[in-house]
Amino acid sequence: MDDSMETGSLPLYQDRPRTTFPDMRTKPTMPLMFRFLMRMNVRLLFVLLFLGFGAIFYVGASTSPIIVFVFSICIISFLLSIYLTNWVLAKDEGPPEMLQISDAIHDGAEGFFKTQYGSISKMAFLLALVIFGIYMFRPQQESSGLGRLTSASITVFSFLLGAVCSGMAGYVGMWVSVRANVRVSSAARRSAREALQIAVRAGGFSALVVVGMAVIGVAILYATFYVWLGVDSPGSMKVTDLPLLLVVYGFGASFVALFAQLGGGIYTKAADVGADLVGKVEQGIPEDDPRNPAVIADLVGDNVGDCAARGADLFESIAAEIISAMILGGTMAQRCKIEDKSFDPSGFILFPLVIHSFDLIISSVGMFSIRGTRDPGVIGIMEDPMTILQKGYSVTIVLAVVTFGLSTRWMLYTEQAPSAWLNFALCGLVGIMTAYIFVWITQYYTDYKHEPVRKLALSSSTGHGTNVIAGISLGLESTALPVLVISVSIVLAFWLGQTSGLVDDVGNPTGGLFGTAVATMGMLSTAAYVLTMDMFGPIADNAGGIVEMSQQPESVREITDVLDAAGNTTKATTKGFAIGSAALASFLLFSAYMDEVASFAHSSFTQVDIAIPEVFVGGLLGSMLIFLFSAWACAAVGRTAQEVVNEVRRQFIERPGIMDFKEKPDYGRCVAIVASASLREMIKPGALAIISPIFVGILFRILFVFQVVAAMLMFATVSGILMALFLNTAGGAWDNAKKYIETGALGGKGSESHKAAVTGDTVGDPFKDTAGPSLHVLIKMLATITLVMAPVFL
Amino acid sequence: MDDSMETGSLPLYQDRPRTTFPDMRTKPTMPLMFRFLMRMNVRLLFVLLFLGFGAIFYVGASTSPIIVFVFSICIISFLLSIYLTNWVLAKDEGPPEMLQISDAIHDGAEGFFKTQYGSISKMAFLLALVIFGIYMFRPQQESSGLGRLTSASITVFSFLLGAVCSGMAGYVGMWVSVRANVRVSSAARRSAREALQIAVRAGGFSALVVVGMAVIGVAILYATFYVWLGVDSPGSMKVTDLPLLLVVYGFGASFVALFAQLGGGIYTKAADVGADLVGKVEQGIPEDDPRNPAVIADLVGDNVGDCAARGADLFESIAAEIISAMILGGTMAQRCKIEDKSFDPSGFILFPLVIHSFDLIISSVGMFSIRGTRDPGVIGIMEDPMTILQKGYSVTIVLAVVTFGLSTRWMLYTEQAPSAWLNFALCGLVGIMTAYIFVWITQYYTDYKHEPVRKLALSSSTGHGTNVIAGISLGLESTALPVLVISVSIVLAFWLGQTSGLVDDVGNPTGGLFGTAVATMGMLSTAAYVLTMDMFGPIADNAGGIVEMSQQPESVREITDVLDAAGNTTKATTKGFAIGSAALASFLLFSAYMDEVASFAHSSFTQVDIAIPEVFVGGLLGSMLIFLFSAWACAAVGRTAQEVVNEVRRQFIERPGIMDFKEKPDYGRCVAIVASASLREMIKPGALAIISPIFVGILFRILFVFQVVAAMLMFATVSGILMALFLNTAGGAWDNAKKYIETGALGGKGSESHKAAVTGDTVGDPFKDTAGPSLHVLIKMLATITLVMAPVFL
Repeated sequence: MDDSMETGSLPLYQDRPRTTFPDMRTKPTMPLMFRFLMRMNVRLLFVLLFLGFGAIFYVGASTSPIIVFVFSICIISFLLSIYLTNWVLAKDEGPPEMLQISDAIHDGAEGFFKTQYGSISKMAFLLALVIFGIYMFRPQQESSGLGRLTSASITVFSFLLGAVCSGMAGYVGMWVSVRANVRVSSAARRSAREALQIAVRAGGFSALVVVGMAVIGVAILYATFYVWLGVDSPGSMKVTDLPLLLVVYGFGASFVALFAQLGGGIYTKAADVGADLVGKVEQGIPEDDPRNPAVIADLVGDNVGDCAARGADLFESIAAEIISAMILGGTMAQRCKIEDKSFDPSGFILFPLVIHSFDLIISSVGMFSIRGTRDPGVIGIMEDPMTILQKGYSVTIVLAVVTFGLSTRWMLYTEQAPSAWLNFALCGLVGIMTAYIFVWITQYYTDYKHEPVRKLALSSSTGHGTNVIAGISLGLESTALPVLVISVSIVLAFWLGQTSGLVDDVGNPTGGLFGTAVATMGMLSTAAYVLTMDMFGPIADNAGGIVEMSQQPESVREITDVLDAAGNTTKATTKGFAIGSAALASFLLFSAYMDEVASFAHSSFTQVDIAIPEVFVGGLLGSMLIFLFSAWACAAVGRTAQEVVNEVRRQFIERPGIMDFKEKPDYGRCVAIVASASLREMIKPGALAIISPIFVGILFRILFVFQVVAAMLMFATVSGILMALFLNTAGGAWDNAKKYIETGALGGKGSESHKAAVTGDTVGDPFKDTAGPSLHVLIKMLATITLVMAPVFL
Repeated sequence: MDDSMETGSLPLYQDRPRTTFPDMRTKPTMPLMFRFLMRMNVRLLFVLLFLGFGAIFYVGASTSPIIVFVFSICIISFLLSIYLTNWVLAKDEGPPEMLQISDAIHDGAEGFFKTQYGSISKMAFLLALVIFGIYMFRPQQESSGLGRLTSASITVFSFLLGAVCSGMAGYVGMWVSVRANVRVSSAARRSAREALQIAVRAGGFSALVVVGMAVIGVAILYATFYVWLGVDSPGSMKVTDLPLLLVVYGFGASFVALFAQLGGGIYTKAADVGADLVGKVEQGIPEDDPRNPAVIADLVGDNVGDCAARGADLFESIAAEIISAMILGGTMAQRCKIEDKSFDPSGFILFPLVIHSFDLIISSVGMFSIRGTRDPGVIGIMEDPMTILQKGYSVTIVLAVVTFGLSTRWMLYTEQAPSAWLNFALCGLVGIMTAYIFVWITQYYTDYKHEPVRKLALSSSTGHGTNVIAGISLGLESTALPVLVISVSIVLAFWLGQTSGLVDDVGNPTGGLFGTAVATMGMLSTAAYVLTMDMFGPIADNAGGIVEMSQQPESVREITDVLDAAGNTTKATTKGFAIGSAALASFLLFSAYMDEVASFAHSSFTQVDIAIPEVFVGGLLGSMLIFLFSAWACAAVGRTAQEVVNEVRRQFIERPGIMDFKEKPDYGRCVAIVASASLREMIKPGALAIISPIFVGILFRILFVFQVVAAMLMFATVSGILMALFLNTAGGAWDNAKKYIETGALGGKGSESHKAAVTGDTVGDPFKDTAGPSLHVLIKMLATITLVMAPVFL
């Protein structure tokens, strides 16, 4: 990266001076805040930290002992994550040729991150101003007892806090991955087990930070509002109204996550597709070959797309899920009048925080159960890394079932309904089971051990066309089972909640929606471990790239290849997990939206008159939004990949020595092309996602049909779930059909079948790593944006 | 076709004796009914016909003078269609080499049609039994005053009548096209204009029969029920309840249309994809080359897929639209109490029949405005056939606006609201405009004169992968504008209807839904002309194939190529028209469903509680149904195409003389493979479409949440519209991107770009000709099936 990238403004790549590989090493870029912290006196820092934590604990203690518990767990897990970083960073960085590559990746990733987050923060700031304006002129929310200015300031503060935390979650994910990759490569020269352990612990570090930050962020906001606004003292707001104030925090998080996912996703897949189309298909050189000018861009992409974006995405998921569960818990507690029976309703509200605190503990246990004892120091007989990771996951799952049961008994026991906690524990079990089945279905459709991918590979033997048709059919078909599972889970959890014995004043059962919320928590109760496995993937991928590029001996490559293969499986698996939890979470957010709007409109708002045409139109627009967003996300990758293809072709023509290793390709130019293109391309779909619900809301407010936004939201959610399932599965299946052929089936590498399979893989790339994951974020963001904008729509 | 096909049972193609080209000529197959009619004495036939028409007119006259008008127009248009057939059949069939090919196509098409409709009729009979059972045990529909047995018999009779008429509509379309194709080829040796005229008049014949049959079928049923059930006499049912009895007729029609479209669509595209993948891509021989063993199957496919299926589809569209508009007209008349003001409510109910009668007249005028005067008898300077067809369309459109205005004044004038007719005339204009804009949008996205297809073609230059990504993005993006247009039309027409001045007893405006119904009629008011243009496409395509295969001179091929190109444009255009009208019609059917259910449940049923999870689940299941159906339809084509590819490859290897014209390929075997595969493959998606709404309805009836089916229906409708738009447009755009490159752009035929574009075209084939059109039928059928099954769900 040259200096122009550091200044934050990225000129068109045509104007940029051509840099070659060795020039890319510059001083590391680092966000201002980090640099500021680094320059401070260590002792002063500790004092400040101590004071900060003290204040937090004081506030927490004034709120609820549960908050203190949550704080403690989060801080312990932060300490643990510091231990993990030190452990990882203490490992050696290998020989200079590795380090040189790693530094290039490092600089490319941090340079892009900085520019990207520069753009995002400008947009976030603009949006914050808009929100401030809206809340200054919103109709007074009477029950809250807050002034307009206070209310607007709180809102904007929460929004910005969510945005900053989400950005930090992304940065942390990338920070560790660009440092761990070279250490994994280096360790692979010594021992497979050690390499695996480094990758897992690096992933674990960011997982603990991301989940911990989501939990502590919500907890701090909750406690601050509780103390500051004097909740539950006479004349001020009720504790059950508090969670609504947190929605804006979730919106801030999802706003940043959406752009992070879009920009990162476009970056990683444009580089990947471009590199493959010329390198693999046209020139026949292997993946990650140092002769390919787009190879550094591809490796950078893994970091900014998979690590940074996934960090922000998961942060947003957990925050959104916690907040919506708190809202529903609050509403239910209010309806059941649990608060009036000398019982603390905060049990229901704070339950999600407790579950995720336990998540931090049990996931750490699972992570540390992966130890480096078997083959110390030498390249020995290699165990399948997938088995090791699965073993850790099993430990985590068992602990999750136990802690979930204990938490429900502790938090959700009420005298009004003594057996309710048992029903809710069963809801949690439903969620954990759903996660398991989702992962299994994803594997069935995307693993080449099973029928669907084998058939897809077979269809490659009759040409590119039949391969693509078969892949699209497979993807469309693969939506069926997950939908059935999600349907059963929602209905079952709702039913368990309804029959829990919790009733409102007139005796109607009210626990249903909270039951589905608990199921969602069950699904996410092992999120930190899953995120660890997910982060493991790109780190292993990068390590493999570094080994390949620095031309290490075959034995080292074998180790990283096995790790990379395991990483691909974990990536596919966690995608099943992510969409399953996104489906449940978006249902929750939708329900929370209905609740929120009802509280604004001072009336029940769950009846939508579907015979009025505006509601039908709202539905059409909602589904259309999903189609258009996916179109723009895929098209962005396609367009950027075409630029990369042309650039790589040009370099091969202009520097014929590249193929004989006599000339160095210009990696920097590919990095610059992809970076500037993905920053440009992420704006259109992102803006669409944010502006269209606001536009529809305002338009139909004028036409006096406020139900339209609800219809739009519901249809967008449903279509978004299906579209994301389709895109993720089709992409994963294509990828593995190609891998299956590369194992030697149907003619193996270089055959016509393989070429057709590479076409399918190329098509699947933007599906599974750009549009699909962006949709996860989008469907959750739509609900929060509608909630935040609700005062404008009513 | 050999004898085994005639007996109705189709053995596996592996067992069939290999037939070669000359063996395919056998005695023509013809449905039993036709053969019976042919053997009768002509004079007796005339007497019977006369008596039949007399009876119909008598019944019609006892019902309403409007019915007599409708009958007369339909009979005139039938006479006109007989004139058109005789005119077409009087043309010469050309030299024996053409006739031989045409006969092979003829026999293949009729053989498949017979077997296919044999299967369909068995399924229809089974379903009729189920319906009979349901209606025998349904809760009494009190207002109708009918006994159970009567009610059940009427229902089953209407269902079977609809099925038979739909089947006949399909047969008529295919009957004329397999006879006209060779006559067009032959005429192309003499004059372009004459060839065009034959194709148009052959298309016009089936258009008049299809539309006329839809109108007269509904009219006869209406009049029969009116007289037989003694409507409006004291104690019996009201005229406004009559249209509900007709729904089953629509269901029968859509049941047959769905399977016709699925079977025909799989047939035509499997043959096309298979022929292209080996012939064009692997062997590099041109399209329709006689050396390609799959070429006859491809040409047969045009007849059974495009002609027969489209005939059944349009028949179903018009019938469904008429019936739902009649239901809404009846409900509105009842609400407005127009019936109590010494005013005949049948004006509102019979309005759609009148509009479509005028459609028959104005489309005939448009069709006859295409005359063969310019270049009589010699191959002269050729006018663009598209211009000629467009001119005829303009004539039809102008007449449509005039007759629509007159009809509204005649039928919809009431003293209660003297200016209501004007509002409804404007609704009609909205519909006509919508049709126009839809056609324009379709052209923008699928014609290579415009930006999108050019960009798609450009993306082919960077490989197969980028081409497919760009095509999918284009298709997804192309859903946006049509959705916006449909949204504006629905809201506008509803608003015009609401402000028409028609109010119910308490003064609420009630004309809204009827306004959208009138807009739908406006959209379909030129259906007969559009269907003519649509039928023109496959006839011209076939003629081109016959010319190519019989190796006519270049000049003849040029003429058929120009006609074929025009046919491709009309096909794409009418697809825009079809999906636009399907979108509006399905909204109507949905509204009619809500009305019907309300009348069963004796309560207002338009409020759906979207916060209960079962409704969300219903929505998920509805959208999932669309995804799964599309998956299965596309996969069926892919699988069958793979069989064809393997067979064609085998023939090229086993008979190396084929490429030098020394050996004849075995066309019959390809025909047999495609026929048996498409019959097998149409069952799964078809059964899914029929069984899943019934299953969900019954399941959730047990769970006491009857709103679930409504949610499922609404989500399936919306997702279906979007998915169909996506599939149709992507397919059309890929097709034309390939054609654009074939004009010489980006390297032209044989270049790498062209190969990538052919891949895109192959992917698009099942999209635009199998899954897409099947979805048109599906979304309309879902509403009718739910209506018919409503007694079970409540």
